Amino acid sequence: MSLGPAGVRAIIDKKRRGGTLERDEIEALVNGYVSGEIDDAPMAAWLMAVCLTGMTLDETAHLTRAMAMSGDTIDWAGAAGPIVDKHSTGGVGDAVTLVAVPLAAACGAKVAKLSGRALGHTGGTIDKLECIPGLRTELSIHEFRAQVMRVGCAVAAATARLAPADKMMYALRDRTATVASVPLIAASVLSKKVAGGAPAIVLDVKVGAGAFMRTLDEGRALAETMIAVGSRLDRRVRVLLTAMDEPLADSIGDALELEEALRTLEGRCNGRLADVAASVAGAMLQVAGLRGIRGPADALRSGAALRSFSEMVAAQNGRLADFDRRFSPSSEVRARADGYVERIDAGALGEIVARAKDTGSESDARRLGLRLAKRVGDAVSRGETLAACFGALDPKDVAEALVIGPQRAEPRPLVLATL
Amino acid sequence: MSLGPAGVRAIIDKKRRGGTLERDEIEALVNGYVSGEIDDAPMAAWLMAVCLTGMTLDETAHLTRAMAMSGDTIDWAGAAGPIVDKHSTGGVGDAVTLVAVPLAAACGAKVAKLSGRALGHTGGTIDKLECIPGLRTELSIHEFRAQVMRVGCAVAAATARLAPADKMMYALRDRTATVASVPLIAASVLSKKVAGGAPAIVLDVKVGAGAFMRTLDEGRALAETMIAVGSRLDRRVRVLLTAMDEPLADSIGDALELEEALRTLEGRCNGRLADVAASVAGAMLQVAGLRGIRGPADALRSGAALRSFSEMVAAQNGRLADFDRRFSPSSEVRARADGYVERIDAGALGEIVARAKDTGSESDARRLGLRLAKRVGDAVSRGETLAACFGALDPKDVAEALVIGPQRAEPRPLVLATL
Repeated sequence: MSLGPAGVRAIIDKKRRGGTLERDEIEALVNGYVSGEIDDAPMAAWLMAVCLTGMTLDETAHLTRAMAMSGDTIDWAGAAGPIVDKHSTGGVGDAVTLVAVPLAAACGAKVAKLSGRALGHTGGTIDKLECIPGLRTELSIHEFRAQVMRVGCAVAAATARLAPADKMMYALRDRTATVASVPLIAASVLSKKVAGGAPAIVLDVKVGAGAFMRTLDEGRALAETMIAVGSRLDRRVRVLLTAMDEPLADSIGDALELEEALRTLEGRCNGRLADVAASVAGAMLQVAGLRGIRGPADALRSGAALRSFSEMVAAQNGRLADFDRRFSPSSEVRARADGYVERIDAGALGEIVARAKDTGSESDARRLGLRLAKRVGDAVSRGETLAACFGALDPKDVAEALVIGPQRAEPRPLVLATL
Repeated sequence: MSLGPAGVRAIIDKKRRGGTLERDEIEALVNGYVSGEIDDAPMAAWLMAVCLTGMTLDETAHLTRAMAMSGDTIDWAGAAGPIVDKHSTGGVGDAVTLVAVPLAAACGAKVAKLSGRALGHTGGTIDKLECIPGLRTELSIHEFRAQVMRVGCAVAAATARLAPADKMMYALRDRTATVASVPLIAASVLSKKVAGGAPAIVLDVKVGAGAFMRTLDEGRALAETMIAVGSRLDRRVRVLLTAMDEPLADSIGDALELEEALRTLEGRCNGRLADVAASVAGAMLQVAGLRGIRGPADALRSGAALRSFSEMVAAQNGRLADFDRRFSPSSEVRARADGYVERIDAGALGEIVARAKDTGSESDARRLGLRLAKRVGDAVSRGETLAACFGALDPKDVAEALVIGPQRAEPRPLVLATL
């Protein structure tokens, strides 16, 4: 169905007046935009009308489906085993995928994980994985399917042909201030997952100063929308709301985060990353119907998760042994007073690392970043190391994001809610 | 001040959140759009945000000024006499300018009228005037100024160089369903008038089924905005809210309306057109500070208005004697029952004539249209002529817009309010 200018105008106008669009109207809009019949301007006007007047769950499901169907899709029909995918809305020091994916695979799930690259101040799993020499993330659909079946997990870059409508619409939203909308965010996240074909999906919605969702209420609204929309598209969706005020892992930076993820898989790092990864992996097993077969904590301790990770890397041509795990700090940030770490601004640290990456060469960019030596609530003495910087980071900028105060901050839970 | 993508995004975002924009922000947006630095998509998003969150009077004045200053402006400083301009928001059978402009000039005003062409279902003064052989409407600013001073009035086509921001933004609004917004309509109307330079302005806001403003409340909101914005830009603005449910004149069509206007100027047609034109001319005299010098009714009766019109036409090279005032109907619409004319749908009739114009040759298009033989409230007998059609109009379509009922409709006033 081609709309023509009058038809496009009528759809925008209906949404402007707060009306509810039909499935064929939303499909015509998305298909017309992808084909080039509808240009950026009417689409931008429509997106702004959605930001301001909202969409029903049915409309959001129609939009998600139309975006998912705009390019290649992966069909898992006939695949043996419980196929599951996961997604994070994006955080700082958020290396959860690198740990949770092999963990869930080690417990029996078939993890078909499609990942993206860094966006704004948040890191990207593909960038982190590509620090392993030789590792391929551009898998064909056939390779991706075959590896998931054989190894139990694969992490592939979402190609440009998967949900192209989402890529086009996200670029447009970014430059027209129409990103902040629960239905548009939900459709963007789910369209890629629906195109990826997994019937079970875990969404890790980051909440806090370092995340796109600033408050628990915002995160919960997004979570509820995604669960309801997933159900309309025959997807079982489970959502974890996890804290993103301070960075999740101690490391920020592609290679540094990969190294910390490896230590976590080796059972040598029992911190915040391990906790959230185990929760996410647990949710993946539950939504895949694998409750109680084998626990994530057990899979970490036994080395089974590390073996899954190594097999996945090898299947994707990666040479894990060639990844240089030694890092030498270029500078350190020290406490200027006695006290407690009151706040670590994840958003600011993410920005600092992202900006430094933009200016360096590609290989430098992968290995730069920082590592926190102290976390919120830790007692510190004047002169003690708070963080180590790697590469061309200005320690003065980093210092500003680390706030020392006289009072010990209350520890906050990492997993805020599960829906 | 150049904004860059981040600056543009910040301005859209501020408006999306319902914030109030500063003068420099609005100027940067308009100037960036006119220069091509800002493309259609962010502008469309901003326009939709304005439609849904509104603008203060100060913001609307900033927008109006920025649009007015985006191209050529006319400076009347040093001109002798009370310069006045008028504008109609657009109606059907709305030949008011053709009568009111020479009427006001005959009473002592210096009328510097900038006009447009047909828009949607509404006619355009320039199209009507160009039915006079030889008549030029593309006057240079110098010619326009000189004629107003010498003859007392001129009607010139608003050139593309006058308020180009308005032309660009209107075209964008038309295709992105962002036309319906009081501040955007007010800025569009006033920006052209402000660029035209007249210190006194009369606005004829049409209200009803055949107008862009459907209700008196909508019309009043627009009127109040335009008066307040005009005052912020040092313009004296007077607004008449006039009825546009049925067509104003009996004629719809360029040459037919011109012919009816001539009859009105000759004092041979004392109908609705004469009444509204006299009210508009009266408002022009008032806002120009000419109250009580000589009345419009007197100027019509004495033939002074006709002389002003003839002088204006001659000054613009028009040969009025060569305008063929004889029209032969191609068909007639007759009453199918006894009763009263209950409703005449101005919007539908405007559409019918506009569509017929689009399909014919240019000279045919100018002379086609229709003439109403009966008006709302008139008693009719079965078989009596309701309207005559001229050119390739389908009388069946016209008949549908003329509703006969058993009850005599209450007569409604033509001038609904003056502000």
